[in-house]
Amino acid sequence: MSENAASAAEAAKVRPIGTLTVYGVGLIGGSFALALKAAGAVARVVGVGRSRANLDAALACGVIDAVGESDREAVSGADMVLLAMPVGQMAGVMQRIAPLLGARTVVTDAGSTKRDVVALARSHLGNAIERFVPAHPIAGAERSGAGAARPDLFHGRHLLITPQPETDSAAIDLVRHAWEACGMRVSTLDAQHHDRLLAAVSHLPHVLSYALVHELAQRSDAEQLFALAAGGFRDFTRIAGSSPEMWRDICVSNRDLILEELERYRAELERMAALLTAADGNALAHVFDAAREARNRWLRVR
Amino acid sequence: MSENAASAAEAAKVRPIGTLTVYGVGLIGGSFALALKAAGAVARVVGVGRSRANLDAALACGVIDAVGESDREAVSGADMVLLAMPVGQMAGVMQRIAPLLGARTVVTDAGSTKRDVVALARSHLGNAIERFVPAHPIAGAERSGAGAARPDLFHGRHLLITPQPETDSAAIDLVRHAWEACGMRVSTLDAQHHDRLLAAVSHLPHVLSYALVHELAQRSDAEQLFALAAGGFRDFTRIAGSSPEMWRDICVSNRDLILEELERYRAELERMAALLTAADGNALAHVFDAAREARNRWLRVR
Repeated sequence: MSENAASAAEAAKVRPIGTLTVYGVGLIGGSFALALKAAGAVARVVGVGRSRANLDAALACGVIDAVGESDREAVSGADMVLLAMPVGQMAGVMQRIAPLLGARTVVTDAGSTKRDVVALARSHLGNAIERFVPAHPIAGAERSGAGAARPDLFHGRHLLITPQPETDSAAIDLVRHAWEACGMRVSTLDAQHHDRLLAAVSHLPHVLSYALVHELAQRSDAEQLFALAAGGFRDFTRIAGSSPEMWRDICVSNRDLILEELERYRAELERMAALLTAADGNALAHVFDAAREARNRWLRVR
Repeated sequence: MSENAASAAEAAKVRPIGTLTVYGVGLIGGSFALALKAAGAVARVVGVGRSRANLDAALACGVIDAVGESDREAVSGADMVLLAMPVGQMAGVMQRIAPLLGARTVVTDAGSTKRDVVALARSHLGNAIERFVPAHPIAGAERSGAGAARPDLFHGRHLLITPQPETDSAAIDLVRHAWEACGMRVSTLDAQHHDRLLAAVSHLPHVLSYALVHELAQRSDAEQLFALAAGGFRDFTRIAGSSPEMWRDICVSNRDLILEELERYRAELERMAALLTAADGNALAHVFDAAREARNRWLRVR
């Protein structure tokens, strides 16, 4: 470990993690490994995943140091296990690793939904539930796979931890410090509250973007429509390039709150339709202006 | 004129425009001036606008060579007049310049809607209607004003011309060649068809983006919501930073076709709500996958 890395770990007031095991070495899991390595906050990273090609790539790029050939090999001796696969695979992995976890191994996740992950952990992690820290690093991009991983992905972004009554405070500290070493701003909140906020600012926009592209793509003149689409369309639909599997799992898991958000949005669209029908230019300009102002305020404080 | 510039103009098989007058020296009008200058395809640019500060900035940056202090001064001697203001100002400017236009001056516009601009030109341009070429350069950004202008804004983008039965073919050629010199791919189509296509891929997405930000900004916990918004939200809402005045005019003018598109989209959202309610992960994944594939195909051919 370099002197810089050592002092970075010192600054975060945490001993480096000896062995980190990452299930799902994609954008999030791979970037977590790279960021911890860059900060000198981890000694060794073991990767586990469904795609051998992706794991080989992760190994070749130095994202991980070893491939966990079995769950036993991957988990035994791990100080921290990060579950960074799509939420749909969470139950299976938890069931498999629960009997293999060491008495001090901390387990955490990076799922975009928290109520469901907490429920799964309760069902499947057994006694390890006390050392399970539900967490969500709010960072991402439409790219996926180990090749998309980068050490600065989390810098300046928010990590939300949704601890449970039984969660061990030392486990929370370990997870908090690891993500802080990646440059994240950490806060804690209730899992339900988390899921509601994310439904509004992340899950709903993804549904809206996918829906627009899907609706246009079904049309007989889709080719001509796309030919005339410009930069605004490209940005509006960037999130429609996200992983369908991941977003299927998020949508199914958090559907009650996403549906509530969708209802609010559909009501807003009904108001927009009324303004358009009435050709009410002043009211439209007022909506557009308020939206632009709110967005500009957000960009300034961001 | 430099040798390079001369050969660029030669390549476009067009004599350089002597004097171009731009009404509305913003992102589009200013970039048109800069692109023509870079191609050696214009000798002199006169700018006219409501904001003296913006015109002074345009002059200082070399976007324009002179400020037209009166319509008479601005228009007399112009070979081409580009109307690049918001559509809401179109009627007034047309009325004022109609009696001042030279017998060979070609007038064109850069409006995002074409049926309304054609109707306004019919009402207000008098005999000059034959030399009015309705056009729409599909390029833009959320920034506005002369300071946002850049010579490469139109490179590789589409220009749509919607000629009328009476439009002089030499006038069409002049406008076509000018925009080709800016690097645009030019095609012609019917004004109604133009407005329908743009309602789908541009106007509706703007309404959707404004609506999302507006709905969130009204809430009591707006600050917390925005604090957790990430890169996906930033891109989805980039177009909600666009000029409220310009988009008010577009929405009012093209409201019938935007409303049709909005109805189709609301029907799509109703289908999405049904899939969410049914927790139909397979169908959701199918929609997401089809959208991602369509978008990726589009990015490849773009």
